[in-house]
Amino acid sequence: MTTGAGPVIKAARVTPILIWDPPLLNLVGVHQPYTPRLIVEVESESGVVGVGETYGDTAYLEIAHALAATLPGRPLASMNELGRRPSGMEDRRLGGEDEQDKSGFRGVLTTSKLHASVVSAFEVACLDALGKESGLPVHALLGGKVRDRVDYSGYLFYRWAVHPGDDVPSDDWGSALDPAGVVEQARRFDAAYGSRSFKLKGGVFPPDQEVAAIRALREAFPDRPLRLDPNGSWSVETSVRVAQELDGVLEYLEDPTLGTSAMAEVHRRTGLPLATNMCVTSFDEVPEAFAADAVQVVLSDHHFWGGLLATRDLAALCRVYDVGVSMHSNTHLGISLAAMTHVAATVPELRYACDTHRPWQTEDVVTLPHTFADGAIEVSDAPGLGIDLDRDALERLHRRWLDSDVRDRDDVGAMRAAVPGYQRPAFPKW
Amino acid sequence: MTTGAGPVIKAARVTPILIWDPPLLNLVGVHQPYTPRLIVEVESESGVVGVGETYGDTAYLEIAHALAATLPGRPLASMNELGRRPSGMEDRRLGGEDEQDKSGFRGVLTTSKLHASVVSAFEVACLDALGKESGLPVHALLGGKVRDRVDYSGYLFYRWAVHPGDDVPSDDWGSALDPAGVVEQARRFDAAYGSRSFKLKGGVFPPDQEVAAIRALREAFPDRPLRLDPNGSWSVETSVRVAQELDGVLEYLEDPTLGTSAMAEVHRRTGLPLATNMCVTSFDEVPEAFAADAVQVVLSDHHFWGGLLATRDLAALCRVYDVGVSMHSNTHLGISLAAMTHVAATVPELRYACDTHRPWQTEDVVTLPHTFADGAIEVSDAPGLGIDLDRDALERLHRRWLDSDVRDRDDVGAMRAAVPGYQRPAFPKW
Ligand SMILES: [Mg+2]
Ligand SMILES: [Mg+2]
Repeated sequence: MTTGAGPVIKAARVTPILIWDPPLLNLVGVHQPYTPRLIVEVESESGVVGVGETYGDTAYLEIAHALAATLPGRPLASMNELGRRPSGMEDRRLGGEDEQDKSGFRGVLTTSKLHASVVSAFEVACLDALGKESGLPVHALLGGKVRDRVDYSGYLFYRWAVHPGDDVPSDDWGSALDPAGVVEQARRFDAAYGSRSFKLKGGVFPPDQEVAAIRALREAFPDRPLRLDPNGSWSVETSVRVAQELDGVLEYLEDPTLGTSAMAEVHRRTGLPLATNMCVTSFDEVPEAFAADAVQVVLSDHHFWGGLLATRDLAALCRVYDVGVSMHSNTHLGISLAAMTHVAATVPELRYACDTHRPWQTEDVVTLPHTFADGAIEVSDAPGLGIDLDRDALERLHRRWLDSDVRDRDDVGAMRAAVPGYQRPAFPKW
Repeated sequence: MTTGAGPVIKAARVTPILIWDPPLLNLVGVHQPYTPRLIVEVESESGVVGVGETYGDTAYLEIAHALAATLPGRPLASMNELGRRPSGMEDRRLGGEDEQDKSGFRGVLTTSKLHASVVSAFEVACLDALGKESGLPVHALLGGKVRDRVDYSGYLFYRWAVHPGDDVPSDDWGSALDPAGVVEQARRFDAAYGSRSFKLKGGVFPPDQEVAAIRALREAFPDRPLRLDPNGSWSVETSVRVAQELDGVLEYLEDPTLGTSAMAEVHRRTGLPLATNMCVTSFDEVPEAFAADAVQVVLSDHHFWGGLLATRDLAALCRVYDVGVSMHSNTHLGISLAAMTHVAATVPELRYACDTHRPWQTEDVVTLPHTFADGAIEVSDAPGLGIDLDRDALERLHRRWLDSDVRDRDDVGAMRAAVPGYQRPAFPKW
């Protein structure tokens, strides 16, 4: 441990919560009504508190408790130290050969990927607290912003109007299960948030139906960049066919198929830029994928990669190897949205609008949730992340977690509630 | 330009100086008695001043004046903005096809390499000022130190006792022109600085003489890592022969020969790790060199790469591609030594002692020059770089620059003062 380097951590707290999630459909099933999330607080000796957020499933929670216990006494400026893989930590593949991560859609899950995701929450909390201690916004702790606003894409989902069952709340978005429903959803994004580009979460319906939805979006919004993300649910042949059909229509195609060699083949045969948050989700996977030209845009995610400094490292790799970079999103609250916005503001070569699940997550643990204008969020110049923790909301959502037996996200299980006997589909789906 | 992001720059100043340099020999000639260096100051609106330092040759000075004029009104936290290559800046190769940079030994010189070197001084100055404004050491602005001390290698040079001519000062190190002289020099490094490893600047004498010097060092210091750096002055065949002769003796061989393919061949045929500050000195050169396995250790240099954040980017690239990283040094003062120490403290995977030209530069512009214990420098936890500018010294060395017509470093010209008609040697020398 290093010594004497500025403000010191007095305490680190870990609070699991459950947040309401609408019935968004994806390749394996549907978002369950409540999904776990983990809120992390790091408090300095002077009482300044920084916050972070990450996945809240059981496996993450266990690591978070262990990591939190090691923090008191360390400097707040421990971001580099946090990023080191603990000595002796074995990098083990979790689940079977074909098993993909259930909550993150981040390819094959390993112990070091889990660890990086937990680290990310503490790293963000340290940056937030350090910023508050020093009067600097987090982006200044990352070398300074190069833009004042960060563009986000409107994230369209096939969805039901309501979850099955009567005991969960709903929203007023209604269902979207065909091209007309998708376009209607996009129009609301346009009106409410000013989204300048759209992404459709695919892999839900047979490819022709999703191609039709993209064509309908193109007709409704002739000038806005469009993306389709079937989360690796297609074969190479299906991917090639869709890529050819949507040539000139898509800004990029996201994870049409699984694995470096399959992605490389699709790109080689079609020339369409492929984006990913599945093929390349850790530094170990970068050299092979870049050498094979398997991905043309890496969708960074500070939860996956281990924090905001790691996200900058990834951006540097992409810059040097002439690979595009943008940002992936999974279910998240305002803490992570703030963190995403700060780091995105510091990456010069960000050429695409970032993804965010906002506005699907309507609950939050910050007092003033972010708002969008022309699809963008303004970069805060306030100290730290520029957000305040809503302790009442945190307590309420933690109470919900305590009162529930939901501990893990399970989109397959949630689908089973609607479709008895439903099983995770085999890959490729098409 | 971004807005409202913390402390703002009021003024940026550029002060060229001449510093005394002993008669150190290298492949092309000898260090001249006085060498130009550039001191940069960035002052915030509240009057806090940050400092940086870089090459002071004419070409750098011109760019520095132009860049300084653009800074007032920008946030201090403009490190990312500074790192962007100006739009419209053409990346042009300077000099002929074979011409190597005269002052930096950094391979082929280009306009973007010059620009990066100037940026580095302003970036360090911004970090220093931002640290002082916020109460944070520079290492905390780079994610926090992972070590409290940074190891430096003892940098041995063949040298004369004095420069030719009577009008320049000298030192008491005496000459070193054979194995015995090199060992004597190393013994003084050992006694005065506690150096735990040694590097010999080679390319001066025929390879067999330099091999003999390394063997003499090995005998005198059986356990200390040793390095030899002929600055690319050998053919592939000579490099292979020396590598084989010194197999098991050297920690690494530094730039035995010029160019990616030649370096790759030497490594392939010998297995000896090759380090470089010539084959790979900009991000553009990384992919080809890494793909060819041309270098096993990149010697980063924040002046070459564009600053401390860029140095961290390089370290990330090296980590991901499993290439070693350490640090190159050229003639420098205490400002750059502080900057080198801060960034080196933040790079987890630093596996080798860094290079520094200290103690050869005995003049300084900081009030308390760094000291070595066991070959290492303690990482400062004071705000900013943790140094204070000695304004009297700066004024005196600037006065020397004003009173002199020396404007560029020219080791070939300096050698001509001792050896009439001396010409830059053809490559490879051996
Ligand atoms: Mg995706
Ligand atoms: Mg060298």
